[in-house]
Amino acid sequence: MTERHDAVEVVVTKRDGGVLSDAQIDWVVDAYTRGVVADEQMSALAMAILLNGMTRGEISRWTAAMIASGERMDFSGLSRPTADKHSTGGVGDKITLPLAPLVAACGVAVPQLSGRGLGHTGGTLDKLEAIPGWRADLGNEEILAQLEDVGAVVCAAGSGLAPADKKLYSLRDVTGTVESIPLIASSIMSKKIAEGTGALVLDVKVGSGAFMKHVGAARELAETMVALGTDAGVTTVALLTDMSTPLGRTAGNGLEVAESVDVLAGGGPADVVDLTLALAREMLRGAGVDDVDPADRLADGSAMDVWRRMVRAQGGDPDAPMPAAKETHTVRAESDGVLTRLDAMAVGLAAWRLGAGRARKEDPVQAAAGVVMHAKPGDRVTAGQDLLTLHTDEPERFERALDALDGGVEVAADDTSYTPVPLVIDRVAG
Amino acid sequence: MTERHDAVEVVVTKRDGGVLSDAQIDWVVDAYTRGVVADEQMSALAMAILLNGMTRGEISRWTAAMIASGERMDFSGLSRPTADKHSTGGVGDKITLPLAPLVAACGVAVPQLSGRGLGHTGGTLDKLEAIPGWRADLGNEEILAQLEDVGAVVCAAGSGLAPADKKLYSLRDVTGTVESIPLIASSIMSKKIAEGTGALVLDVKVGSGAFMKHVGAARELAETMVALGTDAGVTTVALLTDMSTPLGRTAGNGLEVAESVDVLAGGGPADVVDLTLALAREMLRGAGVDDVDPADRLADGSAMDVWRRMVRAQGGDPDAPMPAAKETHTVRAESDGVLTRLDAMAVGLAAWRLGAGRARKEDPVQAAAGVVMHAKPGDRVTAGQDLLTLHTDEPERFERALDALDGGVEVAADDTSYTPVPLVIDRVAG
Repeated sequence: MTERHDAVEVVVTKRDGGVLSDAQIDWVVDAYTRGVVADEQMSALAMAILLNGMTRGEISRWTAAMIASGERMDFSGLSRPTADKHSTGGVGDKITLPLAPLVAACGVAVPQLSGRGLGHTGGTLDKLEAIPGWRADLGNEEILAQLEDVGAVVCAAGSGLAPADKKLYSLRDVTGTVESIPLIASSIMSKKIAEGTGALVLDVKVGSGAFMKHVGAARELAETMVALGTDAGVTTVALLTDMSTPLGRTAGNGLEVAESVDVLAGGGPADVVDLTLALAREMLRGAGVDDVDPADRLADGSAMDVWRRMVRAQGGDPDAPMPAAKETHTVRAESDGVLTRLDAMAVGLAAWRLGAGRARKEDPVQAAAGVVMHAKPGDRVTAGQDLLTLHTDEPERFERALDALDGGVEVAADDTSYTPVPLVIDRVAG
Repeated sequence: MTERHDAVEVVVTKRDGGVLSDAQIDWVVDAYTRGVVADEQMSALAMAILLNGMTRGEISRWTAAMIASGERMDFSGLSRPTADKHSTGGVGDKITLPLAPLVAACGVAVPQLSGRGLGHTGGTLDKLEAIPGWRADLGNEEILAQLEDVGAVVCAAGSGLAPADKKLYSLRDVTGTVESIPLIASSIMSKKIAEGTGALVLDVKVGSGAFMKHVGAARELAETMVALGTDAGVTTVALLTDMSTPLGRTAGNGLEVAESVDVLAGGGPADVVDLTLALAREMLRGAGVDDVDPADRLADGSAMDVWRRMVRAQGGDPDAPMPAAKETHTVRAESDGVLTRLDAMAVGLAAWRLGAGRARKEDPVQAAAGVVMHAKPGDRVTAGQDLLTLHTDEPERFERALDALDGGVEVAADDTSYTPVPLVIDRVAG
């Protein structure tokens, strides 16, 4: 039989509700990476997986096959333990920016290999690239040296890590096969396990602005990923955190860098500070460091010191002001009352349409575009007060950004229709 | 929005169990034909359709969109009515060969645009190409002239008819998305409606050697196709016919031509004669001709006359002997008793492996390869009697052909385990 026919056999097994054998998974992932299994065959398989699911055993094997498709980094030679964090993506989620230097300031190295944003949630690399001179692409030797020297690296994941995942992720993006827990979990975990971190904390977002709209699906994803990490020998914990409203008061690349610097300077919005500290504590615990309180490292300026060194080590100027947008447009409260709703998806879409995000991988993003939120849900507002300021270099973008906000911002006479949601909803451990 | 994103939206609609709008169907079929929707997007959509189904309305629109992707033939200028037959494919199914000239001999023109075989069921064009000199490719003008002059044409469907179907069919073949009733029905009917026939009889095979293994699925396919034809103004009827055992006593290209000529000469196996007559009667009725009994046209030699003119019009020599295989191998009965099982799939696979069929579109087929059956289910046999003769030009093929027959041929001491199946199981009309 030809390899072409083996691919059909694998697709048909999953299509008909069967369980893929280890040999089928190993073969199809490897053959897809080599180009022997064609994109159209893999997309049919991805759709069958999305609709018919995978067992825990299949997901684990699939993840291992994706890791085996490339190199695996090794940080065991470092003088300190390593920990990493991964967020499933949210609006205004700049947490990596203060978190990585903070955890490094506590004595744990943070190798944060990140991606770029696609769609309404921004990418960490896009945010950092708003800093003049900062570069995302580092070689493995540079990563190791910076981890030893500075303690934290946020950079682009090299093409050598889980190339099968890279190829599959691009395919899923254009074939309507993104929203599959087995495929999401194996995609994230193959990269994170290949990255070689010793401990991993997953920030699984739940709510309108997140990939997972409901707690049940988010918990299933978290449990799946924690099991995959644990099986691979990585100490893994997940927090389910709220993404019904944006994190902090900014969504947009340069705007979020500035807010992150505020947090490192001891200020910043309470939710960003709280989540940064909660994740830092989990990372330290996972790395076996339990004698440092990260709040002290924020207060004493040592996290800010690491930030400045980290930015500088990658060519950035930590003192450069963030670029300002050419145009702004302000949305004001129409009545007195309480802001009962500031929908994460609405704000995320608005920021995207203002130019902060990209529709295609090859699109550029605007460093200055985004949304500043002057009030958050639960806040009292008065008629005429500024609620949001939209930033962009291209004023023709305002109209569609305002369309995105339609229905996403609500002011009520009182707070009876407002129910606060806890920031950290649950914790899932191995 | 870019067209790429529209494709994802269409995939996601079907993935999530929704009904595709007319605009979505029109756009996606057209854009796929133009190459704007990529193969990997269409294969994900095909898998979603296979797993989540389509409504009658969606199937009808999908079929219309595939017809609209190309040209539509028009036989309204002919001096006689037209009727065509389509079989969903079976082992030993050479019925088109005697049927087309027989119906033409009854005064109804038969424009039979056919395909080549892929897999265990042979293709009509492959069979006819066993005739020295015969050619399958005719231009539209040649088809019209031959229909007017001879009354019957069996030739390759031109690339202008339903090109969307041609592209999609190739894609489904390699992506495990063949076995979908909406996609099968729309594929068949888009070609047959575009072909311009006035009446259509569908021979929907049921049983081990058929695409549809069970009557329920076959009836669903038949009803779907009859509805599609009727809605498009084509008088359409379907017969559900047995394919648990091969038709006639031969499976293989040249072998089946010889058997068809036997039928046209007034002999041949009873099942082939009976099915040819049953289908001929349906075609004549669909074309509005009710004053001719096709049995008379077989008996008086006029069907044979049309056959000879039809073969000659396409460059073939009707008097040339069929090529003989270089090697034969005989399978004999091991005991006295009754042949209770001669499985269509087993014989079809054996013929395929002997060289009668192809694994890939570009493979050649052997004109002489195939299986001759000396007994059929229900026949008494004696120990040592010939049951099957395998024919091939490449004796190394015998072993795998014999493997295919393993378990497919059973002789029992008596006929208590044998239940005859009617050849025509049911009739489905609009």
